[in-house]
Amino acid sequence: MSTPKTIKIGLCGFGTVGQGVWQHLERARTDLEARLGVKLELARAAVRDLKRARDVAIPADKITGDALSIANDPSLAIVCELIGGTTLAREVTLAALKRGAIVVSANKALLCDHGAELFETARKHGGQLLFEASVAGGIPIIKALREGLVANRFTQIYGILNGTCNYILTRMVQEGAPYATILADAKRLGYAEADESLDVDGWDTAHKASVLAFLAHGVWIKTDKMIVEGIAKITQADLKHAAALGYGIKLLAVITRDFAANQLFVRVHPTLIPEERVLASVNGVFNGVSVTGDVVGTTTYIGRGAGRDATASAVISDIVDAAAILATGKAVPSIPGSSSYASSQPPSLAPLEKITGRYYVRTLVKDEPGVLAQIATVMANHKVSIASVTQPEVAEEGTASLILTTHLSNEHAIRETLADLARLPSVVEAPLLLRIGDFAE
Amino acid sequence: MSTPKTIKIGLCGFGTVGQGVWQHLERARTDLEARLGVKLELARAAVRDLKRARDVAIPADKITGDALSIANDPSLAIVCELIGGTTLAREVTLAALKRGAIVVSANKALLCDHGAELFETARKHGGQLLFEASVAGGIPIIKALREGLVANRFTQIYGILNGTCNYILTRMVQEGAPYATILADAKRLGYAEADESLDVDGWDTAHKASVLAFLAHGVWIKTDKMIVEGIAKITQADLKHAAALGYGIKLLAVITRDFAANQLFVRVHPTLIPEERVLASVNGVFNGVSVTGDVVGTTTYIGRGAGRDATASAVISDIVDAAAILATGKAVPSIPGSSSYASSQPPSLAPLEKITGRYYVRTLVKDEPGVLAQIATVMANHKVSIASVTQPEVAEEGTASLILTTHLSNEHAIRETLADLARLPSVVEAPLLLRIGDFAE
Ligand SMILES: NC(=O)c1ccc[n+]([C@@H]2O[C@H](COP(=O)([O-])OP(=O)(O)OC[C@H]3O[C@@H](n4cnc5c(N)ncnc54)[C@H](OP(=O)(O)O)[C@@H]3O)[C@@H](O)[C@H]2O)c1
Ligand SMILES: NC(=O)c1ccc[n+]([C@@H]2O[C@H](COP(=O)([O-])OP(=O)(O)OC[C@H]3O[C@@H](n4cnc5c(N)ncnc54)[C@H](OP(=O)(O)O)[C@@H]3O)[C@@H](O)[C@H]2O)c1
Repeated sequence: MSTPKTIKIGLCGFGTVGQGVWQHLERARTDLEARLGVKLELARAAVRDLKRARDVAIPADKITGDALSIANDPSLAIVCELIGGTTLAREVTLAALKRGAIVVSANKALLCDHGAELFETARKHGGQLLFEASVAGGIPIIKALREGLVANRFTQIYGILNGTCNYILTRMVQEGAPYATILADAKRLGYAEADESLDVDGWDTAHKASVLAFLAHGVWIKTDKMIVEGIAKITQADLKHAAALGYGIKLLAVITRDFAANQLFVRVHPTLIPEERVLASVNGVFNGVSVTGDVVGTTTYIGRGAGRDATASAVISDIVDAAAILATGKAVPSIPGSSSYASSQPPSLAPLEKITGRYYVRTLVKDEPGVLAQIATVMANHKVSIASVTQPEVAEEGTASLILTTHLSNEHAIRETLADLARLPSVVEAPLLLRIGDFAE
Repeated sequence: MSTPKTIKIGLCGFGTVGQGVWQHLERARTDLEARLGVKLELARAAVRDLKRARDVAIPADKITGDALSIANDPSLAIVCELIGGTTLAREVTLAALKRGAIVVSANKALLCDHGAELFETARKHGGQLLFEASVAGGIPIIKALREGLVANRFTQIYGILNGTCNYILTRMVQEGAPYATILADAKRLGYAEADESLDVDGWDTAHKASVLAFLAHGVWIKTDKMIVEGIAKITQADLKHAAALGYGIKLLAVITRDFAANQLFVRVHPTLIPEERVLASVNGVFNGVSVTGDVVGTTTYIGRGAGRDATASAVISDIVDAAAILATGKAVPSIPGSSSYASSQPPSLAPLEKITGRYYVRTLVKDEPGVLAQIATVMANHKVSIASVTQPEVAEEGTASLILTTHLSNEHAIRETLADLARLPSVVEAPLLLRIGDFAE
């Protein structure tokens, strides 16, 4: 037998994920090499602070402060971008793709903001960009969409994609404590970042939704083309009222495609899910994704959405795919809807009128006669029909909290309704809107 | 651009699955060809009865009664074995592999009984055998285990793998009707075969467990080396008592590996699952698989486990993988533990003493003083300690039904216990044993 080829790997970033990748790849290396028929060498890693103590010890001569030197090193056939952010990460990714390397990235923000440019660069220069770790951590959802479900067109994908939000909502349900208390504790325990906005305001979920939408539909939808709402306004009253109605509340990304009209829509918002649905029992830091294909029906995927080890598992599966590509010259099948997908026009954005659903509206009103009639009139004006009204608790002196659910309406009508409601003199606080997700399964 | 290569596909079997594959592949063909950069041609199909009317119409000159002529046709680079059974299916698969073709099979019985021979034949002659559709229908669990979770060693895999059993158990819970009634109705509706034994006695689940164990551990465990128990003895009393204890009952395949001792065990049995676990809410014909890897933790996969369309989705994903292999010469990564996986010894079967768990025992005893003491003595003799005793319902005159749960014990001790219990004069009917599945997540 001839000596097996050695494939050299460089890591840009050696933080949480980078160290996990190094450690687990070293541990599994002999097995993976036997399966692949090639040698794998973790050759170099780049960090910002060369002096920082690391959990995973690697020889000093393998560490550099210059990530671009790894991206540009022609001996490294695989470059992992595990830095985060969209500045240096973009430069590193572009540089490596330009020399035809395979880049493995866990960076959903980078993909969402610069995906079109990155994939175009890859196409032009013969590089490849793999990104299993960018969505839902250790769950192999990218591979499922791209390969396992290749026979399908995806009419609907929805999922819990942010572990921090799911952790906070789960603890709010379990402990009955307010959002702010749980958030503070989550920060203390390291489950939420010091600046929580990326997670709790829905941006991280939106970045991931963008990646899934690209995979399923071949177009990049940026966050300014989505509805993005976070969990910060959810109260115990909402959770309890939802539970009484038979729902749990989860922050969901929802990607819907109407193939007949060739329209797509991506949105991120807290959603009431019927409690018998499996995603309603996906708790804590776990993620879950439900995918509806026109052939297979609905399949659901659940697992740890982040963390050193789960993310490393996904990065390593990309590294192994990359090594198989390099060993044999095989290209990964291109992504549906991407330039090679000649048979269909890219979808356009669906108008808000077509994004239908039932709604949950909580509002604080003056406790005086006729208020409900005013509210009902506003809703009727927009053809939003009320399904139920509850006054769940005594609010402050002179005000009353009101929870309404609606029959089927749409995002356009409900937005107009909410704007008009907020203008009513009897409405004390801008109403909170939650979606009721009676998704088909 | 040069004319793209044409890859010809033959289908052996054109029944439920075969027709689904033909129809959906034709529908998706242009898109798949664009992604792959090759042409796909469904060239021929074999059936038993040439005169039978088919739902999916194909030209008469493409249909043959001779499946082996497809297996041996050198122009067909991909052969799908969708006949079922282990006789002709085996011949067809061997013949196609011997000429270096890629065989796509949905046949778990064939794989379980002859997998070792088939994969050895493939290795020897440069053929390949893909089998995504053989386990859990449309759920891409084979790809997840083989590629997506490649960084992991699998300490535990358990799943609901038979839609018929899950459908029956679900309806028993929902309707409160006895097993026999629901089974008869399931047959009438086409959810159970005329000969139900393959499904309800656990053999189909066992075949699928064998395939998953091979994928995860590289060895073929046949059903005679497993514990295989079916659902036919489960009563309403069991379901209700389990529910009162906070459990649902599901027929599970359970594959556990102890890496330190290098031991493996595969079993199939009705199992009490804590109702907050996601698999407890996998109902009807749906399948669900929970996979615990040493890096990623537990990931769970849910979807339709059978049926024309879901199975076709899986077969088509294998056809696309096969076409990608043929287009570029890439080999699929070999399976862990298989011959190429040089770094580890194949695991041996774990002894029954090491298969631990808590148990649920239902038995019918004479309603006379001292019976419980006799039973408790038998259990104590085998060091099986009782966690709870209930007498859920009045049985026939002079007898009493008794439900016991145990603390942690093992398959050896509980078997001996059951044998001794059955010998007690006061025990009227051989006890029913169910496992309590408090699986780690
Ligand atoms: N953590 C997770 O659970 C998770 C899950 C999925 C995806 N991801 C994604 O994975 C990526 C990495 O996340 P992480 O949690 O591993 O982040 P992290 O712990 O903050 O690690 C980032 C690494 O990049 C290095 N770095 C930063 N700026 C650099 C510079 N200018 N030059 C060279 N190196 C630089 C850092 O160096 P120092 O160590 O010297 O600071 C550190 O090693 C992000 O895109 C994230 O979104 C993370
Ligand atoms: N059905 C499912 O939901 C499902 C799901 C997963 C896996 N599978 C597996 O897929 C395989 C096929 O299942 P199926 O449900 O499609 O079975 P099926 O409907 O009974 O179809 C079997 C096909 O094989 C043909 N056939 C039988 N004997 C033959 C012979 N001697 N020569 C030529 N053709 C012959 C039959 O011909 P005629 O049509 O002329 O009788 C029929 O077209 C089985 O291994 C099964 O376990 C099925």
